Amino acid sequence: MYSKEAESVLRSKGISVGEKIQLERGKESFEGILMPRPDTGDQGILVIKLSNGYNIGLDFKSVSSIKRVGSSAETFSFPKGKTHVRKGLKAVKLLYTGGTIGSKVDYATGGVYMLTKPEELLHEVPELADIANVEVEHLMSVASEDMTYTEWQTMARKAAGAFKSGAEGVVITHGTDTMHFSSAALSFMLQSLPGPVVLTGAQRSSDRGSSDAFMNLICSTHIAAHSGIAEVGTCMHSSSSDDYCAFIRGTKVRKLHTSARDAFRPVNGAPLAKVNAEGNIHHMGAYNKSDLGRKAVLKDEYEPKVALLYMYPNSDPTLINHYIDRGYKGIIVAATGLGHMPLSTSHKEYDWLQGLKDAVASDMVVGITSQCLFGRVSGTVYRYGRMMTDAGAIYCEDMTPETAYVKLGWLLGNHGRKEAEKLLATNLVGEITPRTEAEWRDEA
Amino acid sequence: MYSKEAESVLRSKGISVGEKIQLERGKESFEGILMPRPDTGDQGILVIKLSNGYNIGLDFKSVSSIKRVGSSAETFSFPKGKTHVRKGLKAVKLLYTGGTIGSKVDYATGGVYMLTKPEELLHEVPELADIANVEVEHLMSVASEDMTYTEWQTMARKAAGAFKSGAEGVVITHGTDTMHFSSAALSFMLQSLPGPVVLTGAQRSSDRGSSDAFMNLICSTHIAAHSGIAEVGTCMHSSSSDDYCAFIRGTKVRKLHTSARDAFRPVNGAPLAKVNAEGNIHHMGAYNKSDLGRKAVLKDEYEPKVALLYMYPNSDPTLINHYIDRGYKGIIVAATGLGHMPLSTSHKEYDWLQGLKDAVASDMVVGITSQCLFGRVSGTVYRYGRMMTDAGAIYCEDMTPETAYVKLGWLLGNHGRKEAEKLLATNLVGEITPRTEAEWRDEA
Repeated sequence: MYSKEAESVLRSKGISVGEKIQLERGKESFEGILMPRPDTGDQGILVIKLSNGYNIGLDFKSVSSIKRVGSSAETFSFPKGKTHVRKGLKAVKLLYTGGTIGSKVDYATGGVYMLTKPEELLHEVPELADIANVEVEHLMSVASEDMTYTEWQTMARKAAGAFKSGAEGVVITHGTDTMHFSSAALSFMLQSLPGPVVLTGAQRSSDRGSSDAFMNLICSTHIAAHSGIAEVGTCMHSSSSDDYCAFIRGTKVRKLHTSARDAFRPVNGAPLAKVNAEGNIHHMGAYNKSDLGRKAVLKDEYEPKVALLYMYPNSDPTLINHYIDRGYKGIIVAATGLGHMPLSTSHKEYDWLQGLKDAVASDMVVGITSQCLFGRVSGTVYRYGRMMTDAGAIYCEDMTPETAYVKLGWLLGNHGRKEAEKLLATNLVGEITPRTEAEWRDEA
Repeated sequence: MYSKEAESVLRSKGISVGEKIQLERGKESFEGILMPRPDTGDQGILVIKLSNGYNIGLDFKSVSSIKRVGSSAETFSFPKGKTHVRKGLKAVKLLYTGGTIGSKVDYATGGVYMLTKPEELLHEVPELADIANVEVEHLMSVASEDMTYTEWQTMARKAAGAFKSGAEGVVITHGTDTMHFSSAALSFMLQSLPGPVVLTGAQRSSDRGSSDAFMNLICSTHIAAHSGIAEVGTCMHSSSSDDYCAFIRGTKVRKLHTSARDAFRPVNGAPLAKVNAEGNIHHMGAYNKSDLGRKAVLKDEYEPKVALLYMYPNSDPTLINHYIDRGYKGIIVAATGLGHMPLSTSHKEYDWLQGLKDAVASDMVVGITSQCLFGRVSGTVYRYGRMMTDAGAIYCEDMTPETAYVKLGWLLGNHGRKEAEKLLATNLVGEITPRTEAEWRDEA
């Protein structure tokens, strides 16, 4: 409810929540959908959702003119989580898994809580009905920091099932903390896709003025319906001016800021496409083309006994024994620089080289990546790289530690150890960028 | 030795290796110092070191004119690792610790080896003699991936000693892999500095055409002699066009590319200064001013029983027990997003919250940082952050995981546990950026 004063004027103009209105304030003019007032907060502030997906708050007292310019009431009556089916629009399945995009701030406690009914997403973003025939399914309500391989498997199975049931694209809403782990997992689990699988989320909850939830969801639905890119990727804000989102390959993306809306960045590659809220899609590189005749191949086994090990000064190599004792099958090392471990420190008790050898002798697959994140590792430039290669370590090219970690668990789940070893540094789904001529030259 | 043909012409013009020459090729003109020919490679290629520090190779046959324009022979006779002492130049101590900057490619094996005599650095970079009275000391020859807290202590003691002996600035050459750990350690160990302590290195060895060794060393010496910034920092290439270096605060820098020359980037802050090879220094923010009357305070104790723990899906919380069993005193968590651990996964055996409580109950100090690297952590926005705060975790503001890790070991070495807990999230030497008003507003 808005303030009595505001409600009275709105009523007199025949304006209801959910309808498109136009307001004037001084020399400025605003057009958008009148949103419900949050339970708490100043009741004199009208919340308007603009066409770019953002909410703005306008002090009712500062508004000189207000009129109704259209109704979007129909979009507020989606039955059971479906938009009105319109002819000519593509079918998009929206799988809801939780995270900030489906959360609101509880102004009483200051905490953030999840929507109990994810279908509410459709009510909050009525524009989706103009982009595609969207069907929402509530898969789970899991904070992304709690996601494990079993949730990855559930998402993969549901996405494959959605295509089988006629969806032309899939959007998965997901918490942002580990979205890049999930996007990598789905990239390996879902191969030969007929259409796009788009993971999206929000860095700020949907009832905050600075929320990216709406635009991310709108852009993701455009990508799912119209990009023609049959790959798994993330679609999130991509510039500080919030004018477009980037669809980034699921194995080449990483969250690189705790709170900024453009936190998701491509690592060692360009985005697959840029997209704005109006649905303009600009393809930026090679991609697998959609083909609805194709059947998704689901490879959803996973071996969770894989560790991601970060190297740093004074680090304790007996960690390797911890993992050997617990029957681990693989380790991805987030090494330093071009891919180095401390092999010869001034402290006798530290001996990562022996640890590495013990791990390999225990039948573990050991992959080397770099904590630098950007760039490619090499086992041949420096002596330590050669020693580690000789000890059986596999250099993982330009994969991020996170992608290599997800890949190794997936390889060990779906293939034997030998095969996993062979495929770890081989490109399967775009996770490894081929070396450029310049790189070859540079290393020569 | 160059080819017979080339040597004969050079002799006829009275040109020796180490002298300044001018060459014409077509319409291009080059001026620089004639370098010795590497043992292997095409002997018809003249290697010229340009004033920006880069070597270029020119095919002798393509050169239409060549003449001697000056001698720098004197710079090739530095006795015992000192430049000629010139009046009016500042005294700079150069501490050599190893790494690529003091390495050459062994073209026979393709491997990289370290210089046996670090004094050779002065021969390779005769320009240093014009910038400062440089004295080289060979501290150690340690690959940076092998550096531990004892090497940090050695560097800190030597740097403090250098100021005591009259140095006005200190340059430390260092491998790049862990240079940002060392720069953070020295930032805490060396307080109340009278002048700059500049860590520098090279991403490419000095005999490669693309080497950044010369320019980094030249720029670092300028900073050490003339910046007036009494802080510890790194000075490395800062743009892809290689036109300047950045001097970045030692606690705010991270290596973010495996091989690029501009791999060292400021995280959550701007560089302290930019500097080019000509010695133009552009200050970019607030800094501690040099004061040669001040005495460096050496606080070089260190507690190495601190772990850096990376969070990821399926990660194993029993790791905490590994560290408890081994008597660890502290843990820095590289958590996800705003600073979260998986507290409630679908797998019962994973329980990081209990692990966190056990660690705190075992008298460990537990600090929370983000693997996003950029941005600030918060223990209040989401419920998990609150639960972790309640369990005793300390949110480390906008420190990188690496800086917080180094800081916690330093705090525990120099202070009691209680004091360490109190100071971990308190800014001591510029490692924590104060919240901006915009951030406060944004979180409200």
